[in-house]
Amino acid sequence: MTFDRKLTIDADAFFDDRLGTSGVPRASVAALAPRLTVLRERLDAWRRGDAPSYFGLPFAGEEKEFTRRAREFAGRFARTIVFGIGGSSLGGEMLVRILGGRRHPVTFYDNVDPTTLAELDRVDWRETLLIVISKSGTTAETLAQLLTVLPALEASLGANKLRQHILAVTESPQGDLARIASALGCEVLHHPAVGGRYSVLSVVGLLPAALAGVDIEALLAGARDMATRCLAPKLESNPALFQAATQYLHAERGRTLCVQLAYADRLRPITRWYRQLLAESVGKIDASGSPRGLTPIDAHGTTDQHSQLQLYLEGPDDKQFTLLYDPTLATRGLRVDARFAELPAVAPLSGHTTGELFHAEFRATRETLTRRKRPNRTLSLGADASALGELIILLETETVALAELLGVDAFDQPAVEEGKQLTRDYLRSG
Amino acid sequence: MTFDRKLTIDADAFFDDRLGTSGVPRASVAALAPRLTVLRERLDAWRRGDAPSYFGLPFAGEEKEFTRRAREFAGRFARTIVFGIGGSSLGGEMLVRILGGRRHPVTFYDNVDPTTLAELDRVDWRETLLIVISKSGTTAETLAQLLTVLPALEASLGANKLRQHILAVTESPQGDLARIASALGCEVLHHPAVGGRYSVLSVVGLLPAALAGVDIEALLAGARDMATRCLAPKLESNPALFQAATQYLHAERGRTLCVQLAYADRLRPITRWYRQLLAESVGKIDASGSPRGLTPIDAHGTTDQHSQLQLYLEGPDDKQFTLLYDPTLATRGLRVDARFAELPAVAPLSGHTTGELFHAEFRATRETLTRRKRPNRTLSLGADASALGELIILLETETVALAELLGVDAFDQPAVEEGKQLTRDYLRSG
Repeated sequence: MTFDRKLTIDADAFFDDRLGTSGVPRASVAALAPRLTVLRERLDAWRRGDAPSYFGLPFAGEEKEFTRRAREFAGRFARTIVFGIGGSSLGGEMLVRILGGRRHPVTFYDNVDPTTLAELDRVDWRETLLIVISKSGTTAETLAQLLTVLPALEASLGANKLRQHILAVTESPQGDLARIASALGCEVLHHPAVGGRYSVLSVVGLLPAALAGVDIEALLAGARDMATRCLAPKLESNPALFQAATQYLHAERGRTLCVQLAYADRLRPITRWYRQLLAESVGKIDASGSPRGLTPIDAHGTTDQHSQLQLYLEGPDDKQFTLLYDPTLATRGLRVDARFAELPAVAPLSGHTTGELFHAEFRATRETLTRRKRPNRTLSLGADASALGELIILLETETVALAELLGVDAFDQPAVEEGKQLTRDYLRSG
Repeated sequence: MTFDRKLTIDADAFFDDRLGTSGVPRASVAALAPRLTVLRERLDAWRRGDAPSYFGLPFAGEEKEFTRRAREFAGRFARTIVFGIGGSSLGGEMLVRILGGRRHPVTFYDNVDPTTLAELDRVDWRETLLIVISKSGTTAETLAQLLTVLPALEASLGANKLRQHILAVTESPQGDLARIASALGCEVLHHPAVGGRYSVLSVVGLLPAALAGVDIEALLAGARDMATRCLAPKLESNPALFQAATQYLHAERGRTLCVQLAYADRLRPITRWYRQLLAESVGKIDASGSPRGLTPIDAHGTTDQHSQLQLYLEGPDDKQFTLLYDPTLATRGLRVDARFAELPAVAPLSGHTTGELFHAEFRATRETLTRRKRPNRTLSLGADASALGELIILLETETVALAELLGVDAFDQPAVEEGKQLTRDYLRSG
């Protein structure tokens, strides 16, 4: 089958031929190839399924089963609520908000702020499916969410029916979440042995997405296409490894802030998902004991032209930019009324659609960044399942490659344990 | 009148007595006093109303008039829609989302993404007030918003009634927005000669807030209280100048990323407003031709403990932190069910409310940042009008003082003009 690629990458303004001395030479990027050989081989092994990995998820072949289960649940329930935090919610929420329909609303609760949780008082649990996701089975926020609403569910449904309304997703059947679910008689779905921030293409993201009507088969087809391209042995032909090596070189020159600037309201949830992916994967101490890390920053066009652009253009040269752009917007929107065209500020707008204005503003921002020698690239995609699948594997694999180049483990998060212990201590001492 | 102060500042973990060599000595802060003398005198002049300024707004005495007008409008209309971008929306949206009630919804459109604007097709304009805000009167996005929906308003209302449904807020009566409004017969309210990002306590923020039911008199009372404190001649007694000088010293040590971490879902809009305030005010070229600037980063607890905290604790020491915390949350929320207390992850939670868990997590994050020698302070406030008024003047005055210390003009944004011109060129050439 030929695959109609829907994600395009334009990274010209990362390089010296476009950006002068502020760009990096393509030859310097190519010279990093030996440092990524081992990772390239690991991707191969992950692709074959030798070990559980985010990279093998698109090839797991579970999408038909998730689609079938989702259809069954959507027939029985009017809506789904998901309890989860961090990697247990950001990926699924991204898929649902970008691609989901209105027929079966799927809502995510990722905090324990009591003001927000008070909304749950108004839920009619008789027609609601509750999915509770915690890889470890011990996440304090998620367990607290479940155990504060449980009495309301029991009161509304009775203990017998309750079991049909709750699904738990967790890795170990011996973990606390699995034990609670079993005690209540609820089904437990297996969370694969893949870190939360890399779990979006597993049950964690796919089941909520399928419930919201997302075409997860197209999503995974796009993901498989990108994964295959990311196995290319030659660095220049390998999108993720080449892009990561380029970003690494900019970071080595002090551009350690990675601004992801979404030009399309619907693409904004990507930036929330990505900032966890990047920050937790690369922000840590390397083998020599030095702190490493790139800081993700999420921004949105055109709004942030009136908020952050001044800093981006004239502030310190400590940033590199990824613009996410939806080219389909250019042909949409209402037309500016033809009256008042004699006014100087209206004249250039007159007769144009808001989509044309949006497109012109995107182009102007990109060009201004380039003229000011700020390294930038554009990833173009519509709100389209296969394109989003491509983007997910691209950004995940770039992140793993950045961690490899920075000399840190992409898959752990050792520093956050101390806070979890302190939280328990404070609760005990009141 | 004695004023019951509702904002508290705890900056201990900025200083060396708490943070060792990662903190700054209080004496070094005090030594910056001479560099802020001129600004302190300027604040005095602004307070007296010698020149238009954000600092004089709380003393302008317009709140009773805005409250009266808002009451009249709220009686005639079911909802308000605001068109504006950047400083014309972020401040008002902050007030409305934090403090507004449900009786009269006020909704802000700050982008020209045609997907989002399509929502406007469903508006019943017969019961809607439209406020259009542009200081310059030439903002492309705002004019495009107005001139794309105008035909729908005319079709729904007729040209005669239309004039009662649109209010324009702009500075010059000769500007394009004022001329459109006059041609349509609509009222034009004066935007004071204060930059958009400093305009929240003028008609720009106050009128939408009053429409949403916000107690703008309490808001301004809090603002006046803080403004008075910010006139204190002694640096150590002047909250904004002292805090700014402290942040400046951390920035000079390489901590140029200012993370504002909101621990309360309702306080999140502060971080969106603040990131414009800081970025546009200080991100620019100084008199010697060097790029200066601090980069604001918005984050949210507890969610970002599972997303950004790993980077904050173990990544590069390039950040300083402001936690925004609502202490009233600690006493709210449902109680975790007493069952399952034998499970190790449930035991510490059992019998506690979500508010207690939230409070314990906030304390744990703050303590972990301090133990890892990451400079941090906490600003505590509830979702309360007078406390928010205090906070607004504090953060604005801090920002002006930071610009003074960095040697840049807090009130201009010279770099964004080029992109505006390019947008017009692209629209003309198609």
